This record gives sequence, C-alpha cells and structure tokens, in this order.
Amino acid sequence: MGEFDLIRRYFTHPPGHAPQVVLGVGDDCALLQPAPGMQWAVSSDMLVEGRHFFPGTDATRLGHKALAVNLSDLAACGARPLGFTLALALPQADEAWLEAFSRGLLQLADLHGCPLVGGDTTRGPLNICITVFGEVPPGQALLRSGARPGDDIYVSGTLGDARLALAALQGQITLPEALLNSTRLRLEQPTPRVALGMALRGVASAALDVSDGLLGDLGHILHASGTGACIDTELTSKLIAAGAYLESAEAYFGHEFLQQCTLAGGDDYELVFTAPATARDAVARASQTSATPVTRIGQIEAAPGLRLVGPQGEALAPRYASFDHFA
Amino acid sequence: MGEFDLIRRYFTHPPGHAPQVVLGVGDDCALLQPAPGMQWAVSSDMLVEGRHFFPGTDATRLGHKALAVNLSDLAACGARPLGFTLALALPQADEAWLEAFSRGLLQLADLHGCPLVGGDTTRGPLNICITVFGEVPPGQALLRSGARPGDDIYVSGTLGDARLALAALQGQITLPEALLNSTRLRLEQPTPRVALGMALRGVASAALDVSDGLLGDLGHILHASGTGACIDTELTSKLIAAGAYLESAEAYFGHEFLQQCTLAGGDDYELVFTAPATARDAVARASQTSATPVTRIGQIEAAPGLRLVGPQGEALAPRYASFDHFA
Repeated sequence: MGEFDLIRRYFTHPPGHAPQVVLGVGDDCALLQPAPGMQWAVSSDMLVEGRHFFPGTDATRLGHKALAVNLSDLAACGARPLGFTLALALPQADEAWLEAFSRGLLQLADLHGCPLVGGDTTRGPLNICITVFGEVPPGQALLRSGARPGDDIYVSGTLGDARLALAALQGQITLPEALLNSTRLRLEQPTPRVALGMALRGVASAALDVSDGLLGDLGHILHASGTGACIDTELTSKLIAAGAYLESAEAYFGHEFLQQCTLAGGDDYELVFTAPATARDAVARASQTSATPVTRIGQIEAAPGLRLVGPQGEALAPRYASFDHFA
Repeated sequence: MGEFDLIRRYFTHPPGHAPQVVLGVGDDCALLQPAPGMQWAVSSDMLVEGRHFFPGTDATRLGHKALAVNLSDLAACGARPLGFTLALALPQADEAWLEAFSRGLLQLADLHGCPLVGGDTTRGPLNICITVFGEVPPGQALLRSGARPGDDIYVSGTLGDARLALAALQGQITLPEALLNSTRLRLEQPTPRVALGMALRGVASAALDVSDGLLGDLGHILHASGTGACIDTELTSKLIAAGAYLESAEAYFGHEFLQQCTLAGGDDYELVFTAPATARDAVARASQTSATPVTRIGQIEAAPGLRLVGPQGEALAPRYASFDHFA
C-alpha cells in the first residue's frame, strides 16, 4: 500500500456534510470558508509514542484521544470546531492499525462536526500531530488572562482518574479490574468539553483545559491574569470518579496519592475556569445546557500565589508539581 | 530549561507586525481574524529526522526548510501566508540547536509576513510538524483539477539540484566543492514560490509544488484533471542549475542520472502549473512581477498518460518513479 492509497483509504473524510469545507483532502491545501465576522481559533498538539501513550495502546482510542486533546483546546477558548489536519509518522503501514485509528479519529470528528481536511503521512517513529481550527465571535474567546480577584474557580467533570490509570499501568498501584477499566477509559479516551466551552462564552472570565494537572494549569491563569488563588482541597479530592467505586478513596489510595492525582494528575482534559460570583446562575445554566457537571473549588485572590486549604480550613503546602516535558 | 521557558525564549514571535493575529503564542488557541470574504488555505507537513533530513543537518537551514515546504503548499494554491503553528518533538532541549533552528524558521516567517502563532513542544525523536494558514479570494485558489487539453505546462526555477546534493551526501556521486555547496543549499534551504503562486491567480489553470519529483507530481494534476500530457525532456534536462557549473552536465553525470534528477528528483519545491496558450503573455507577466523564472516544458493532452519526448522528438519510456514514503 502506497502513501496515496493509504490517505485515500483511511483519511479521506466524505465531503458535503460540512459547509465550511470548500475543498478537503487531496490538493496542496484544504480550503475553508470562514463565517462572516468570526475569528479563527487554532491549536496544535503532538502525541509521541512512549511519551504521551504506551506502545501498543488501542488504536481506536488513540485516534479518539489525538483529536480529543486538540478539541479540548478549542473548548478552553469557547470555539466551535470547524476542521482539522492530521500529520502522521508511522513505522509501517499496518492496515489493521490504520483502520482502527482512523475509526476512532473520525467518529469523534463526526460527533463534533469537525472534518479532517488535510495533512501528511510519512514513515518514522509513531507520532501524531493534529492542528484544529474553530470559530468564535470577536471578543468572546475565553482567555487565560481574564481572571479577577473575587472570581469563583470551577472545574468541569472529574479529576485524577487518568493519573490513577497511569499509575496502575506503570505498576505503581493495583486497581480492581472494573476500576482499572473505567479509569483507563478516562486516560485513553478523554471527553473534550466543547459544548461547555461554547456555553461559557460571555460567562467565564478565564478558562483553560487541564492537561498537565490542575494546579500547574491553573497557575497559567494566575500568571496571565496577575492574580493568586485559594483552592479547597476537600472539594477537589472528591472529584475523582474512582471514589464512587470505593468505600473510601482516601483509605484505599492514601491521602497523599489522592491529592497528587486530583491536584496534579494530568491528562484530565477538563476545563478549569473562573467567573464572577454574580455569574453563578449563568454558570449553572451553562453546565445544564451542555450537560456537563461543574464544581466550584475556590476563589481568585489579589495576592499572588496559589493557596491550598484542607478540610478544617488549614493551609497546606502547594507542593504538587505539574508535568513538564523538559523539566 | 523547562517547556514553557523554551517556548518563551525561542518561539514567541513578537506580536503587532501582523494585524491578522489577534492572539499569538501563549493561550490554549491562537486567534486570527480572517479578512472579510477571503477563503482560508491550510496545509500541514511533517519532517522526520533520518527520513526528510540527515541527522546533524544545520539547524538554521532546517528551521528554514520546515517552514519553506509548507509555504510552498500555499504557493501552489496561490494563497497569501497569514501564520503557522509549530509542533516540535526534540530528543533534548539543546539551546544552541534551538537558537539556530528558531532563527532560520523565524527569518523566513518574517520574510513572508507569516508569524508563528502557536504550537506544541515535547520530548521525542526529532520531528517537526508545521501547519500553515493563508488566504485566497473565493474561486481563485489554484487547484490540481483545472488542467485542460491544449494547456501549456510550465515549471518555475530549476529542477534536480536537490537530488544531486542528496546523491552526493549519500556517497553515490562526487561533486566539486562549489557545486556541492550550491546544490546542498537547494536541498536544505529551498525557496517557496509564494509570489509566483499569488501572481498566477486567474492565470494558471492548475498548479502544485514539486516535492516528490516532477513526473510524479505532475501525475497528480493529470489524475485530478482527467487529462494526459507530453513533456519535452530536452527542455527539462536543461533546468538543472548545476549545468551552469559544468561544460556539459550530461557528460559529467550521464544522460540517465540527469534525467532521474530533473524528472523525478524530489525536494525541488518549484511550482509546476498549466495555463491556456492564450495566457502566455499573462504567464510572462506573472513571472516578471514575482521575479521568478518559468520555463514552458510541454502540453496537456486529452489522451490519458504521460508521454516523454527526447531531443529528436522521439518518444521515451516514462520510467522515472517519484518518491513514496510507503511504497
């Protein structure tokens, strides 16, 4: 199977269902028609085998995840997905792998009306680079820089389960099979919070997606906004979905590891966002219309720095580092 | 040096000089404002060490080339560059390499008013993935599908010199030092024909850029347009710039190897395009205004297939294969 066969067979997305796509896969460039007046949001993520995913990861889930982490960036800006390009380096053209990978990829693309419009394929160590495009009305993109003292801090969905699965797959902990399966799904097939992000336009003052861990990522909002924050760890420690499977997640995993997972786990792909206290009803409506649970976990403060508060309101040392590829 | 330092130091393009960039590097997404009514052209290319370039390739040239091959895709569509994202996997954060790479990259970006707006960095086998965005008025993009019988076929600049350098670097041939240096520049630092592509809007009937070799790439135009073509190899064999350094390139390299280089060399990043015979003056003007030489090398024909004609008008077997990563 040659390069052009491979593209035709697995990566030619049927045209026609996406009016923004003037020309899809097959020419030097794809052509897209922006809606009048809209701004374009663009993001690019690269997944490297052995770094972002284990060798042998289920290819359907990997296809899903490669697009999901990019859609998550659009969600964090409140942008509506319009399309994406895929550049793929493969050690060999394995048809079963390609079929499964493209199925996972294009199913999620269809779910979000975000067609594959172009890209590149080459031989090389397995590497998946997706660039995604979305649209957002001018001035309505959710940025990292808009948080103000007194704003509430929220996080969507659950936190820390992907980190649990990672620890189990690395042999650091043992999980009951049902729990391994459910947390592994969170690690390998995350849900980008696109509908929530769009519903938060005009409501949230700042937002980003949690990819490297809550505290580290929240730190980007604090840095960009020139503020500090206080986080209630009694609330965040309950956000691990694994807790529902166990009588006491804290007893099972230990306090320290549970904090590590929820505060600095990484790979959650939830949205962390801020909104003025006057917007609590609007946040609740955005949560409802997008069918995405959100939890208020703290508050933006004027004083720089990130303060963690425990169950009795006591101050904790914020010693949970987030992930850094070059640290 | 951590991931965010690395991005800030080497890949934060000064904002302000590109009015289309609303928000550059540093948030979840970049934000761009399309000009009213314009279509967006998007292309993505991935360069893998050991596959697209030799380990140890000069980093400044590599930075240039990584963007050049993407700009070349915009050129082939007649699009004006607006911006690009860079996803970079690096074995380690080598500051000297990063400084040189980003210098080559951003110099070419500045030359084309095409700022770096976002991307990703990670550890991994060296891999450079760039996605480039441009704009083109609706209906004016140069496509592969527009060639018609009777159209002239042109190619810009020179052909085959990159292949000569590759053969020399692989030890297949020996080149005089001056010739090695000049051909190596063509291989490692190609010139994207952006101005020519834009000047050919409304003039060329079809276009693409020569990355895998003239005949193979021209084949994509023939396939998409449902036509055949006849190419005069007496003309194409003179398009190798190395010819100017030698009394007779044919005597030095041999007829067969010279044909291989010019017809199927790859890495030329010239434009091959078609235009009606009535547009010869317009093509000449496009060549002049863009200061890019073009040569008429053949004609589109109704009968399918690619015919090669030799110096005495005799038919030659078109046995020169183009590059395929998975063949």
